Amino acid sequence: MYYLGIDVGGMSIKVGIVDQNGSILVKDKFHTGNERSYQEIIRDIGEFSVNMIEKSGVGIENIKSVGIGIPGTPDCKNGVLIYANNLSFRNVPFREDLKKYFNCPIYIDNDANVAALAEAVAGVCKDASISMTITLGTGVGSGLVIDGKVYGGFNYAAPEIGHMVIVEDGYLCTCGRYGCWEAYASATGLIRMTKDIAQRFPGSEIHRICNHDLGNVDARTAFQAKRAGDFAATLVIQRFTKHLATGIVNLINLFQPEILAIGGGLSKEGDYLMDDVKKIVYSEIYSKDPVPQCRIEYAKMGNDAGIVGAAFLGL
Amino acid sequence: MYYLGIDVGGMSIKVGIVDQNGSILVKDKFHTGNERSYQEIIRDIGEFSVNMIEKSGVGIENIKSVGIGIPGTPDCKNGVLIYANNLSFRNVPFREDLKKYFNCPIYIDNDANVAALAEAVAGVCKDASISMTITLGTGVGSGLVIDGKVYGGFNYAAPEIGHMVIVEDGYLCTCGRYGCWEAYASATGLIRMTKDIAQRFPGSEIHRICNHDLGNVDARTAFQAKRAGDFAATLVIQRFTKHLATGIVNLINLFQPEILAIGGGLSKEGDYLMDDVKKIVYSEIYSKDPVPQCRIEYAKMGNDAGIVGAAFLGL
Repeated sequence: MYYLGIDVGGMSIKVGIVDQNGSILVKDKFHTGNERSYQEIIRDIGEFSVNMIEKSGVGIENIKSVGIGIPGTPDCKNGVLIYANNLSFRNVPFREDLKKYFNCPIYIDNDANVAALAEAVAGVCKDASISMTITLGTGVGSGLVIDGKVYGGFNYAAPEIGHMVIVEDGYLCTCGRYGCWEAYASATGLIRMTKDIAQRFPGSEIHRICNHDLGNVDARTAFQAKRAGDFAATLVIQRFTKHLATGIVNLINLFQPEILAIGGGLSKEGDYLMDDVKKIVYSEIYSKDPVPQCRIEYAKMGNDAGIVGAAFLGL
Repeated sequence: MYYLGIDVGGMSIKVGIVDQNGSILVKDKFHTGNERSYQEIIRDIGEFSVNMIEKSGVGIENIKSVGIGIPGTPDCKNGVLIYANNLSFRNVPFREDLKKYFNCPIYIDNDANVAALAEAVAGVCKDASISMTITLGTGVGSGLVIDGKVYGGFNYAAPEIGHMVIVEDGYLCTCGRYGCWEAYASATGLIRMTKDIAQRFPGSEIHRICNHDLGNVDARTAFQAKRAGDFAATLVIQRFTKHLATGIVNLINLFQPEILAIGGGLSKEGDYLMDDVKKIVYSEIYSKDPVPQCRIEYAKMGNDAGIVGAAFLGL
């Protein structure tokens, strides 16, 4: 049996046929064309998927379910997308509209939840009864999986870990609150800290790396400068490490997952960043030995997490 | 059928026979005698309980299960108490030792989780699929109940909501971190804020209420002074309200319970406190209308929550 996974993003829509182990038989993608109407996009999703299944030779009768991962808040029970972050449509009946193309069960969930499900079933968390996967990218996303099922709260909108205030009255967050973790632990937050601190150190390596235009600072700049021994960059990374650890400790105290998997662009700094984060985390968590401890690992499903996790909604 | 609930506290141990609706048929308590050995205390628990069942006329064969709620971290699977906050014993096999007295299943869980279970099954959260009960007392405790089951994380140590940092580098918490919610939203935190601010306002009503000795400040002092129109006390309550709201918004964003029930001593201030808290909460939460919203209610199981919730562990 196979499962169809559809990963809807603001730029592209990826579709794949996946088996129960998370192996992708075939995958392909098309341009979202975000300026188009929902009707056009849903028709493309349906036709593209049916086409892929036909060409794959799997046979549509062997597709056990269709799963859709989408950035936004779904009504999982009714298969409706309430709203999406980077798409213009609101309150659209995904399940109902895809029934035209498929006879099998159709599921929808948030993209971060779906990515966490991929890690929980086939990735680094596959032996954990409870796991959380957090994605450190432009924003901070996450999903919690309990005994193979995504936890979304009663309204499928949890867990918004990025919007947990860790610094009351701190940096303004995109959500309107001040001091959210996302404003500190995301690439956006790191870039902001890099610029803020570089401005106070005119001789810093940071200026050279970004060609003396702080507009060129990206999430790697401070790491690069720190590796060259730069003092200002070391300050930036110290602060970033601390903010990242503060949020991770909060999450462990609150959720106690067996594995906390870290993914997203910033996780690519690897142990160079995470070794120091872990030192703070394990010194600060509330429940210490002999209580069993949450392990921190790297997510490993990468770019396929969206397709595989969406497919796994039907497991 | 009946369920035996045992609420183990540092001061007293309460035992009750409870039916599936949460009605207490009979209850009684004895002094913990916290300085005594585990062996003496567990023997007292066993004998006191068996005695109560005999005297009640229920008959021990009609006791379907025994549940124990205890302040600390249990190993729920093995029925062991790993450690307790106000009791001196560590790693003690509660279930094993109570088998001498009972033939039925024996459960153990954290006291805050158990209180949340009482609210979820028979209290204010009984119609909610997912609910969280938070207790604002000397500390800040909480429990999360999902579809009738307590959520404790993989190691039964979650959710420690009091130990979520909301003010990085803020007040020192009893757990060793700086800026935990418990250091702000508990009675202890409120007393600290009351004293801090009163010191800067020598003419404040706060001084009169506590007989010009700030050692007499308690969790009601600032509310009392504010009701009398005192400026310093108004400042205290404004800050306390904000800190309380910050943590509640975090919890809603993270867990999205259908009902968040507030209990404990501070909840007795009722709407005088909570109306302002709710105004901040509903303006700050991440997932807004048309996504369904978490409701904030008052816990209603009161002092019986410990017995009833412990009994419900066997439901």
